[in-house]
Amino acid sequence: MAPDHSAPGADRIRVRYRLETPPDQADQLARAIAVEQTVEIPDRIIPPRIRREVVGEVESLTRAGPAATEATISYPPEFAGNLSELLGVLYGNASMLTGVRVVDFEPPISLLERLSGPNHGVLGLRRLRGIHGRPLVATALKPRGSSNEELAALAAAFARGGGDLVKDDQNLNDDFVTFRARVLACAHAVDRANEATGSRCLYLPHAGAPAEELERYVAFVAEAGLPGVLVCPMLVGLDAVRMLAARYPLVFMAHPSFSGAFTNAPGQGISHGVLLGTLFRLAGADISVYPGPRGRFGYPEAAVRDIQTRLRAPLGGLRRAWPSPAGGLACDEVTDAAVESGRDAVLLIGGALLSHPFGLEDGARALLDGIRAEFGETAAPPEPMAAAEADGPSRLAFESDWQWTGRPGSPYKDAGDLAFRGVRRVELVGRFGERSGSDLRYFEVEPGGYTSHERHLHTHVVIGARGEGVLVLDGRRMPLRPHDIACVGPLESHQLRNETDHPFGFYCVVDHHRDPPMPPRDA
Amino acid sequence: MAPDHSAPGADRIRVRYRLETPPDQADQLARAIAVEQTVEIPDRIIPPRIRREVVGEVESLTRAGPAATEATISYPPEFAGNLSELLGVLYGNASMLTGVRVVDFEPPISLLERLSGPNHGVLGLRRLRGIHGRPLVATALKPRGSSNEELAALAAAFARGGGDLVKDDQNLNDDFVTFRARVLACAHAVDRANEATGSRCLYLPHAGAPAEELERYVAFVAEAGLPGVLVCPMLVGLDAVRMLAARYPLVFMAHPSFSGAFTNAPGQGISHGVLLGTLFRLAGADISVYPGPRGRFGYPEAAVRDIQTRLRAPLGGLRRAWPSPAGGLACDEVTDAAVESGRDAVLLIGGALLSHPFGLEDGARALLDGIRAEFGETAAPPEPMAAAEADGPSRLAFESDWQWTGRPGSPYKDAGDLAFRGVRRVELVGRFGERSGSDLRYFEVEPGGYTSHERHLHTHVVIGARGEGVLVLDGRRMPLRPHDIACVGPLESHQLRNETDHPFGFYCVVDHHRDPPMPPRDA
Repeated sequence: MAPDHSAPGADRIRVRYRLETPPDQADQLARAIAVEQTVEIPDRIIPPRIRREVVGEVESLTRAGPAATEATISYPPEFAGNLSELLGVLYGNASMLTGVRVVDFEPPISLLERLSGPNHGVLGLRRLRGIHGRPLVATALKPRGSSNEELAALAAAFARGGGDLVKDDQNLNDDFVTFRARVLACAHAVDRANEATGSRCLYLPHAGAPAEELERYVAFVAEAGLPGVLVCPMLVGLDAVRMLAARYPLVFMAHPSFSGAFTNAPGQGISHGVLLGTLFRLAGADISVYPGPRGRFGYPEAAVRDIQTRLRAPLGGLRRAWPSPAGGLACDEVTDAAVESGRDAVLLIGGALLSHPFGLEDGARALLDGIRAEFGETAAPPEPMAAAEADGPSRLAFESDWQWTGRPGSPYKDAGDLAFRGVRRVELVGRFGERSGSDLRYFEVEPGGYTSHERHLHTHVVIGARGEGVLVLDGRRMPLRPHDIACVGPLESHQLRNETDHPFGFYCVVDHHRDPPMPPRDA
Repeated sequence: MAPDHSAPGADRIRVRYRLETPPDQADQLARAIAVEQTVEIPDRIIPPRIRREVVGEVESLTRAGPAATEATISYPPEFAGNLSELLGVLYGNASMLTGVRVVDFEPPISLLERLSGPNHGVLGLRRLRGIHGRPLVATALKPRGSSNEELAALAAAFARGGGDLVKDDQNLNDDFVTFRARVLACAHAVDRANEATGSRCLYLPHAGAPAEELERYVAFVAEAGLPGVLVCPMLVGLDAVRMLAARYPLVFMAHPSFSGAFTNAPGQGISHGVLLGTLFRLAGADISVYPGPRGRFGYPEAAVRDIQTRLRAPLGGLRRAWPSPAGGLACDEVTDAAVESGRDAVLLIGGALLSHPFGLEDGARALLDGIRAEFGETAAPPEPMAAAEADGPSRLAFESDWQWTGRPGSPYKDAGDLAFRGVRRVELVGRFGERSGSDLRYFEVEPGGYTSHERHLHTHVVIGARGEGVLVLDGRRMPLRPHDIACVGPLESHQLRNETDHPFGFYCVVDHHRDPPMPPRDA
């Protein structure tokens, strides 16, 4: 039987394209894209197995105007083996068609499980800074051409004025020796200012370098004890940023340089939200900078809201990231922009602060005062690990019918060829970049269903949760009801069965790194 | 005195933007871009030195329609420290403005001197293949989902049919072990076919991998003795491709996946020619694939011609690269497409060959026959190193007034702080990726001018060429007329002076790797 790719929870790359085409040609164009992005051969010679398993599937077509249709196409998750390949299947060859734009994108669960995403996210950055309850204010060190002393003096003034985060301008690109001298000068200046204020302003140098040397720049920042870096994902490569974020536990602030080529042409490219929201967060951006509706770029409000939503919404177990409106915000607009962007935003004010009539230090102080007047400020979260500020796995909201926010179920298929029936699996903790030693999963077995009969070296801790089931352990049968706990030891053959008329659910804790299951001894 | 940035030969990054803006606002927008791309601070606070040395300069504005203006802006060459930075200054923040498109771009001489560009170029690839005088025909191994045996059989059939070059489909993305098995299977099949035909069909695997592993894939291809790789510069990063091409002496075939986001929206992005022609060649593409005017993408003819021109025109000392029209060429259009594209093109025919009524092998044979009928074919160039086929430094055409094609003069400034006057320098050989042990330069000294008085460990071989000058060598004076040869030994103080009323020109040969000059002993 052909798999039902459009079933909810199916592990697929799901992309919504806006097609500028007459409605009667939309179906044909959508099918052509599904082929173009995957096998790129004439339709009539696609072998049946490859059509079923490899070619994209047009899941739906919706009219979106007199000459526009939105088509949802899903692709097998194997096309998201790495972020470069993912960009290719999203929009690689389709980019060369005219009037095709990516407007929504849902990554496959299996990709989310492999990515660690933002290293710090909303709560992590707040902990580094030690400020809760209000938006953060950032500035940029510039202009290029200034001496190290001039840039260091700007950084120190901003820190003394109570600024939260100071980054290099993305135009600062130097050979390593020059970079190192500049970074050490600015870091030293911020350190001195922090000692004076008793606060911790964060300094993020720009990691811009030839491909051979990019990692050396990031490693230097990490070894110097600095909290993070500024990167330009569309210049150095999205997957290169993902690699660096996975290797270095720094704050990654992503600059949108070069991204407008994708986002700003109506009818073509990738939507602002998908690129600067979803894709940048997948690459590990803790902070995504973009031009706000105010300022000299004037990005559309709907686009900006979409970026914000995608940075903050559940996305597998990835930490929430910070939207960072920028691009020529005037000082007297900052508080309004902060209210529009919400509390968990980094307001980036560059030129307006550099040219502030009070000077940079007092200008920063005045800005921060305005924001504190609007939002208040605390040195610690209102409640420890308050739900609204918790990121990623800190709290998973339990929903009706045994679902968890941000944790869609995935098909139960770990057991390979071992037989099972009617089992739903929800990975809860451990496969979303938590770096914990164990994984927590929830399994639910339909009436008449059973898990695979198997054994392995690793142990299972099983906790009954919903309804009643039977644990078969080396041939012995024992009931498992809510809050019953069972331990399956090394190489004990085991199976969980539902012999009732109601769903049977249980938690299972296993080592994160574990051996694969094998058939029972007596099989 | 402020430098004259717009002077011909000045070492600048020169970019022509098309601005969709009312004519009376074009000047303001152009000036805003010049600031945006370099210092990004309010105009009124730019310090004078930084305005002079760092900010872009608007060199010209030309009306290009009722609501369009073309603006040429030049930037200091330091903004091209690496290709990522270069993309940033070309279009980084400007991409986020609306109605700004890059339509022409001239790289700075100092960048061209640092880049090695295509490893093989037109002549090098012909030598690898052993075919001259006609366009080459390529195909792609697909669809994804096929077994290694199926793909290897396709490769072998194409090679037996006389095909020139077979590449992996860019959709083939695998983990390393799977990649290795596939590449070895296809390479083996092509080797066997080559043994049978006595020809040398070239197989280029796709290097598509996570950032951590990309180099490992390319290294494997090189170590396996294969001639080249397919890469997707817009997916893995333009500067990553440049790094790989500099490290591995392979043929790099560049696929345009994802590039349409830049090129295909009128009024936004980067022109087809600049991206797929100039920038891909700078990154080291020996072959640049793009959708031709025929086929399912239907790229505009003017755009395609611009790509072709930029791949083949003089560009510093970089080798000429191959245009490769693709994107659904039908078999009966191939000869016409070949005539349109010219002899030095790689015609890429994928799906149409896979579904050829004669089968792949005979289909390829029929295609090649058609092309041979049109162009002929030779196993060696008509004349050894024929000028029309020679790449890069093989022949530099001497023009009137002591200029060479593709070798603009650059300011004479190697000598650092040492005084000189009225000297023009033309780098001829050695700094354009030739990997020769010595460099050849031409210097011309104005009446009354002189080179810096200096000494160094390396030796100079000087050949008089134009007019008459004086060589001062450790205090001795000697005349230098056309074809006089002088040798300056280690640590001999020397200077060349023009004491006549006419220009004095000479060649100078030096070691490629050499010590910097220092002042004379008696200074």
